[in-house]
Amino acid sequence: MKIKKLIKINKKNNKKIFLVEGIKEFEMAIKGNFFPIEIFICKNIFHQYNMIKSFNDIVCFINIKAFQKFSCRKNSGGIIALFKKEVSNNLRNIKVPKNPFILVLDGIEKPGNLGSILRTADAAGVHFIILCNTKTYIFNPNVIRCSLGCVFTKKIFVEEIKSIIAWLQENKIEIAVTGFHKKKSIELYQTQFSSHLAIVLGSESKGVSKIWLKIAHKIITIPMFGNIDSMNVSNATSIIIYEVIRQRKLHNFS
Amino acid sequence: MKIKKLIKINKKNNKKIFLVEGIKEFEMAIKGNFFPIEIFICKNIFHQYNMIKSFNDIVCFINIKAFQKFSCRKNSGGIIALFKKEVSNNLRNIKVPKNPFILVLDGIEKPGNLGSILRTADAAGVHFIILCNTKTYIFNPNVIRCSLGCVFTKKIFVEEIKSIIAWLQENKIEIAVTGFHKKKSIELYQTQFSSHLAIVLGSESKGVSKIWLKIAHKIITIPMFGNIDSMNVSNATSIIIYEVIRQRKLHNFS
Repeated sequence: MKIKKLIKINKKNNKKIFLVEGIKEFEMAIKGNFFPIEIFICKNIFHQYNMIKSFNDIVCFINIKAFQKFSCRKNSGGIIALFKKEVSNNLRNIKVPKNPFILVLDGIEKPGNLGSILRTADAAGVHFIILCNTKTYIFNPNVIRCSLGCVFTKKIFVEEIKSIIAWLQENKIEIAVTGFHKKKSIELYQTQFSSHLAIVLGSESKGVSKIWLKIAHKIITIPMFGNIDSMNVSNATSIIIYEVIRQRKLHNFS
Repeated sequence: MKIKKLIKINKKNNKKIFLVEGIKEFEMAIKGNFFPIEIFICKNIFHQYNMIKSFNDIVCFINIKAFQKFSCRKNSGGIIALFKKEVSNNLRNIKVPKNPFILVLDGIEKPGNLGSILRTADAAGVHFIILCNTKTYIFNPNVIRCSLGCVFTKKIFVEEIKSIIAWLQENKIEIAVTGFHKKKSIELYQTQFSSHLAIVLGSESKGVSKIWLKIAHKIITIPMFGNIDSMNVSNATSIIIYEVIRQRKLHNFS
């Protein structure tokens, strides 16, 4: 009965609770101060009992058949946990970091792309990520997996475009938008990024919302020389945020 | 009966024939001089008859139920075609391009990663790609899809590591390997790449084979500042090949 309920949770985008599968991912959720409600362990697979010793009260052992019914992946290590969602972050309550480096993602569609962007943003030390026009549930199993759990440890805000723009402008943060504009586009390697920077990337099929192109300080394009005229959004994000990292290292922005 | 045979082809890694699904992908296979044997069109979905007018003899119309049985994806545009595999390329028969920029992929495991690396390599104008320790069938539907068909237009060689190393050394091509080595590792942004360059990347779980670290002219690492100590291989490849592109543009290597 319980298992059936869990499968339902996994299929729906429940707003109050979500499931986390995998050892690394569970550890990251704990690290990110998320609160587990119930932990399902498959004894045939799971071995790392040290990891869950402070949660004994909420551990539930299930057999391998039941486990496989709601497991979404191979090699999860025999652990699936039900977590409570935190109260959402709010941009207005945050202290702007020194030399802010922010990533804005407008309407990313595929959970795998969102996950791997979060993983790269974590590696690059982006201060935080702001999502707008969200097309993907942030705790979708594929976001969790492709981000290797960074979705729990990275500060992420979900906001309306207008509030994001207002906040960036109030805080004098340069807005560099990825996209194409007949007159205003500059190539990535001709671009000098400011020490106070937000990079904006758009969806796989439509790019950024038009308003970003209107208010952008810079519109950047990645040089391309091949048969294909577009790039996977997660790879494009990696290329741009690491060019920013190169410049920040050069100028000692931390 | 025919449909059943097709489903079998799609499941097995048939060495002589393979399936291509999708309009863009079909066009890229034709552009790459691959030869279609049979084209399956679902009239309820397909509209671009111009595209297949020179192949009338080999077009076979099927109904939507049959189409959906062996279609692997949504939005394929109603076309699946059976192609004949070309004779493999051989490194020994190739003329080394001016200022060669080559990508070597050692043991990439996931078709999606291989596909999206090929897409970025195409965008960056990498001259060709050499695969070794292949874990993925090169015409796997997911490689085709994630590469947007670049797998057909990009020159790709599959070779033994030893032959690759011998060929690179004979042709005086700098070998820059992504990985970690206590003494020899240099950070990507401290690296000056040669005009004759091969970048080597390894598998998702194990990195490059040890021999690459032994014979490398340079071992490079990407700077990371986050909670996670690794990066998705496709994103890592993007970051490195575009840093090479930045340097090549600066020095006018073409």
